[in-house]
Amino acid sequence: MKTKSRFLRAPVEPFTIQPGLPADEVLARMERISFQGRNLATARRIWEKMLGDDCTIFFGMAGALSAGGLRMIVAHLIAERYIDCLVSTGANLYHDLHETRGRRHYQGSPIQDDAALQAEHIDRVYDTYASEDEFVENDEWIAAFAATLESRPYTTRELLYKLGEYLWKETQRDGILTAAYRASVPIFCPAIADSSIGMGLSQARHHDGSSAYVDVIGDIIESANLVIRRPRTASVVLGGGTPKNFINQASVQAEFYDDRVGGHRYALQIVTDVPHFGGASGSSLEEARSWGKLATDAEQVTVHADATVALPLLVSALASSAQETLAKRKPLRFDLSGPVMAVEGRPFPKLRFEART
Amino acid sequence: MKTKSRFLRAPVEPFTIQPGLPADEVLARMERISFQGRNLATARRIWEKMLGDDCTIFFGMAGALSAGGLRMIVAHLIAERYIDCLVSTGANLYHDLHETRGRRHYQGSPIQDDAALQAEHIDRVYDTYASEDEFVENDEWIAAFAATLESRPYTTRELLYKLGEYLWKETQRDGILTAAYRASVPIFCPAIADSSIGMGLSQARHHDGSSAYVDVIGDIIESANLVIRRPRTASVVLGGGTPKNFINQASVQAEFYDDRVGGHRYALQIVTDVPHFGGASGSSLEEARSWGKLATDAEQVTVHADATVALPLLVSALASSAQETLAKRKPLRFDLSGPVMAVEGRPFPKLRFEART
Amino acid sequence: MKTKSRFLRAPVEPFTIQPGLPADEVLARMERISFQGRNLATARRIWEKMLGDDCTIFFGMAGALSAGGLRMIVAHLIAERYIDCLVSTGANLYHDLHETRGRRHYQGSPIQDDAALQAEHIDRVYDTYASEDEFVENDEWIAAFAATLESRPYTTRELLYKLGEYLWKETQRDGILTAAYRASVPIFCPAIADSSIGMGLSQARHHDGSSAYVDVIGDIIESANLVIRRPRTASVVLGGGTPKNFINQASVQAEFYDDRVGGHRYALQIVTDVPHFGGASGSSLEEARSWGKLATDAEQVTVHADATVALPLLVSALASSAQETLAKRKPLRFDLSGPVMAVEGRPFPKLRFEART
Amino acid sequence: MKTKSRFLRAPVEPFTIQPGLPADEVLARMERISFQGRNLATARRIWEKMLGDDCTIFFGMAGALSAGGLRMIVAHLIAERYIDCLVSTGANLYHDLHETRGRRHYQGSPIQDDAALQAEHIDRVYDTYASEDEFVENDEWIAAFAATLESRPYTTRELLYKLGEYLWKETQRDGILTAAYRASVPIFCPAIADSSIGMGLSQARHHDGSSAYVDVIGDIIESANLVIRRPRTASVVLGGGTPKNFINQASVQAEFYDDRVGGHRYALQIVTDVPHFGGASGSSLEEARSWGKLATDAEQVTVHADATVALPLLVSALASSAQETLAKRKPLRFDLSGPVMAVEGRPFPKLRFEART
Repeated sequence: MKTKSRFLRAPVEPFTIQPGLPADEVLARMERISFQGRNLATARRIWEKMLGDDCTIFFGMAGALSAGGLRMIVAHLIAERYIDCLVSTGANLYHDLHETRGRRHYQGSPIQDDAALQAEHIDRVYDTYASEDEFVENDEWIAAFAATLESRPYTTRELLYKLGEYLWKETQRDGILTAAYRASVPIFCPAIADSSIGMGLSQARHHDGSSAYVDVIGDIIESANLVIRRPRTASVVLGGGTPKNFINQASVQAEFYDDRVGGHRYALQIVTDVPHFGGASGSSLEEARSWGKLATDAEQVTVHADATVALPLLVSALASSAQETLAKRKPLRFDLSGPVMAVEGRPFPKLRFEART
Repeated sequence: MKTKSRFLRAPVEPFTIQPGLPADEVLARMERISFQGRNLATARRIWEKMLGDDCTIFFGMAGALSAGGLRMIVAHLIAERYIDCLVSTGANLYHDLHETRGRRHYQGSPIQDDAALQAEHIDRVYDTYASEDEFVENDEWIAAFAATLESRPYTTRELLYKLGEYLWKETQRDGILTAAYRASVPIFCPAIADSSIGMGLSQARHHDGSSAYVDVIGDIIESANLVIRRPRTASVVLGGGTPKNFINQASVQAEFYDDRVGGHRYALQIVTDVPHFGGASGSSLEEARSWGKLATDAEQVTVHADATVALPLLVSALASSAQETLAKRKPLRFDLSGPVMAVEGRPFPKLRFEART
Repeated sequence: MKTKSRFLRAPVEPFTIQPGLPADEVLARMERISFQGRNLATARRIWEKMLGDDCTIFFGMAGALSAGGLRMIVAHLIAERYIDCLVSTGANLYHDLHETRGRRHYQGSPIQDDAALQAEHIDRVYDTYASEDEFVENDEWIAAFAATLESRPYTTRELLYKLGEYLWKETQRDGILTAAYRASVPIFCPAIADSSIGMGLSQARHHDGSSAYVDVIGDIIESANLVIRRPRTASVVLGGGTPKNFINQASVQAEFYDDRVGGHRYALQIVTDVPHFGGASGSSLEEARSWGKLATDAEQVTVHADATVALPLLVSALASSAQETLAKRKPLRFDLSGPVMAVEGRPFPKLRFEART
Repeated sequence: MKTKSRFLRAPVEPFTIQPGLPADEVLARMERISFQGRNLATARRIWEKMLGDDCTIFFGMAGALSAGGLRMIVAHLIAERYIDCLVSTGANLYHDLHETRGRRHYQGSPIQDDAALQAEHIDRVYDTYASEDEFVENDEWIAAFAATLESRPYTTRELLYKLGEYLWKETQRDGILTAAYRASVPIFCPAIADSSIGMGLSQARHHDGSSAYVDVIGDIIESANLVIRRPRTASVVLGGGTPKNFINQASVQAEFYDDRVGGHRYALQIVTDVPHFGGASGSSLEEARSWGKLATDAEQVTVHADATVALPLLVSALASSAQETLAKRKPLRFDLSGPVMAVEGRPFPKLRFEART
């Protein structure tokens, strides 16, 4: 047989079964198979590289991941500093708050008489149920929190830090918001108005004319300043939606004011949406390169899988294999208590980008 | 042969080919086939019913529909009052603005060397290209617009009305923003911070300390008041994302303050996402019933199709078959020029829900 | 503004609404938009080119298209010779036979109590129902047909020609099988054993020890000979499955025996499956090039859409715009009455490939 | 708070991260989350129940699973008798044979210049490559095997047993075909004509007029007889295509001749296709009930995931948790060496169904 083509260098190694295999070894064996299994294994390696590099790791989450049972994984990622900044939909933070306050989501069925559910005030998220009455009670709790705010604009980043603090002081329980408060990890929620947290804030305004404003334009500035302060960044995204785009936007906006910024150096996304309908949620990381959202030589991988399948395996594996790297990591230290955040003791400028020149 | 089962009443009628068939007849023949073809035909019938009923029609759009060539269909729906209120992602409004200002998007290929595109400052959206330099110039234009605003909070609804006015006065060209301005149709953009319009506003703040704030909590109140004012509503949604949820949220929030509100009476969605991963974008209209987002007896249909295939055929057909119904329709008249909108001459309350009692 | 990039040549032209637009004009306007709408319009142009070129057009169909209301479109494509050879799943031919025999499929709901359906002997295909009892009666009819066969091997191509003849003589009704019989268009069904036609044949064997064999290996030879006879070929595929692969296999197998064969010159597929899970059904036409299934310079397009949405519009448009081209077309003339087909009067060799040299 | 609704009984338990977690514990923790993660965990429990029950387990595989690195998992399932009968596409058996013969598939990229691949005779399956020249050489090997066959009809079941035997004698290597030969587990391949194995057989016929016929109708009879012999059955399906339907068809056909047969008692499918386009590949297990393919009270679950992600985790977990159950299992013993198989020493009837009269 003649010499092999340069394309035929790394053989596929069939996965072999062995009882008792730990998660990290399952993923290790998946590195040399094909399709999305290989991609998931690659995602682990890329995340490890992010952790070993001196970069800021943004983490985006969309989809009903908190209701769906993944919130303690995200809390773990925050507390152990696998990530440096969270961008989330409002729903994921609201459902986290719901559980941190001691309420629950429930296992249900995707095939159910929805009129019967409505009659019992039960809200369905595919195969998961929650009590509408408990949700209403959350809104009052959020309104009570809003009453503690001053009459001025708050970025969602500052607001969510205060919310995490308020929640921690009351509950002393772990969750996404409380872990982020305790670890001083910033959370941005660009579409907060499209969530029950926003609804709770609107009810506060109705009741007492509360004049705290949510300053979402301030979030754009602060997230870009985060990139400018350390242009070496990475992106981990679950689902699409506003978190995926907002993380990329931070990089693009930062580059406008600082040409050292050149797109994320690492990117991994776990998505179920597809590119061919043109929406941003399913867009490929190749496409992101054309926009400069990604460095041209970035290491990247897309995993086409449901996060409830992929994330438990991925993070269980990382928790073993990245232990040493993580221990050596020196994550950014934030001060999130004021209207403008400080990084490693140096605050960002007020109301403006930290432009060079 | 014995008597047929009650389940076997309406036979599938195979579609027959005839040259020269107009769009509305194509859809008429699709009503008695199966799968998504039938659903698209049903969507036409349900939209006709909305138009013939005395209800407020919300229209949501997510996905790169403006860049993808559908913006003049949406402008048509607004100008002809097939719809009463638009909820959009920021990107769709930005790309509309881009074209109304005389710039273009370009037909490209989904398989392209993205590094080469980046080198030429070309941004790719699947198979569609745009000039990054032109985008940068838009941002300056938006900053100039922002300089005309007062130092106070603006809902996105008010802000986008002003933007449409500014754009119309400069260009006198049709598009989504200008059609909405001219027809006084409100536009909400709950995730404006996650878009280039938001980026433009943030740059305005950087340059001149502009103190106009975007008041997204105000949008929640105003959109709910719209439902309270006339609780009979309908929902037409393209894609998922924030528009889909925001339209449902308006109904849920309104019901909290007015028990005449009982969910949308009609709902149609054209989506490519699927329910089984739990995300709101792909969630079914059955699930929406459990939340009270939809009336229990609402007429509804989900069409699983790309909007660039479905919408041209659907609206071309409607333009013929709904002509008479549309002529008789008496759409709500809005005054959108102030911080609080007025409907049929009666303004909404300031900073609060129009609660009964 | 500086000279435009070479990438920015063909602007997207927004689709504009006009009442009364015929199907072919709807597609014409979709040619300059984006995403799958543009792809569907491109599919029309490519099919027109096939018709105007001197090539053999293979047509594959998988998915429940006959039950779903598309069988008369396929019958039209056969009768009018938009296509030269059909490759189908067994189910599509069986459901066609069912309707040609005067039975019907019925419009149903995708959300139904399936135990109730089973209790009434109703089989569900998503939102479409059929009577199990009528299906059972079809099987007896097929067994009666099988009794007319000789005790020897039949390719599915010959068998289905005989079946079409038997069906036409009894019913004098249009459908896929009868149209193919009357127009002498060959049908291959490589997975006939995985269908109710196969079940009917197995019951015939049970009853009378019928010794007609289905010779599926003969189908491989005959389909490749079809390509060898005229190496200029085109492929139109709805769905994936065995038809998609079998059409490509014919080309690959033919090339093995005749180096003039170089893959399909034109290819269009309408699929809902995606490439990234590695299955052949969703595989891209780019990938097909690596195998030589497609000529390197073939014109090709993939449309990601449900056939029940795409096909009615596509063929309605073609019926107008391709009329002239079609009238000039000189399709291959087949004699299908014997164990080995003849093309333009010249029979294929028996039991072997028509290899050069 | 008032008494909880009957719908709110089983809370979602957020997945918690722990280093070193074995695969079966990862799945155990996924049982109480939501969406496809929960479904995958449920799949494990249902498979365990199958193993503990006295039933015949059919296993279907479609999609490029052998090329993609899963063939040794399937070989393990056969050798350890997690399954009793395999139904496969031809490609999966061909790619298995390729590797058992010592050739390899290679890790590649989904974004590659396919013309360059073609120039080097490399076939691409998404992100996986293979040598076309090696494939051609396999075909000759298959032709050599075919020369050992007698001049009579062979079911694919018998043919594949002989092929496994021939392959084992030559290679003494593990793989799907050789494991099935050694464990006497029957393999059916209803669409063998749509694969390279079929191509190899057709080339054998070309060369030497080989008169072995593939008797796919015989497969229908034999697979149904397998169900009639023990009507308690279960179905495990990866992907859709012909294997999924053939396994269901065996049950439906068997019920026609024996009313003790009442559909599979357990069913699990791992699919990426969706139900709403009407195709059988994506069809739901609820729909299968209407046809009687599934018992009305069957335990069933659909996992929407790529098999390369789901199967390694699922079978790694089973290998631990099902060890004891598996050890007690008494799987059916087959004799596959003749034209008609024998089960537990009793052969099936020739050319007919084992009907109860």
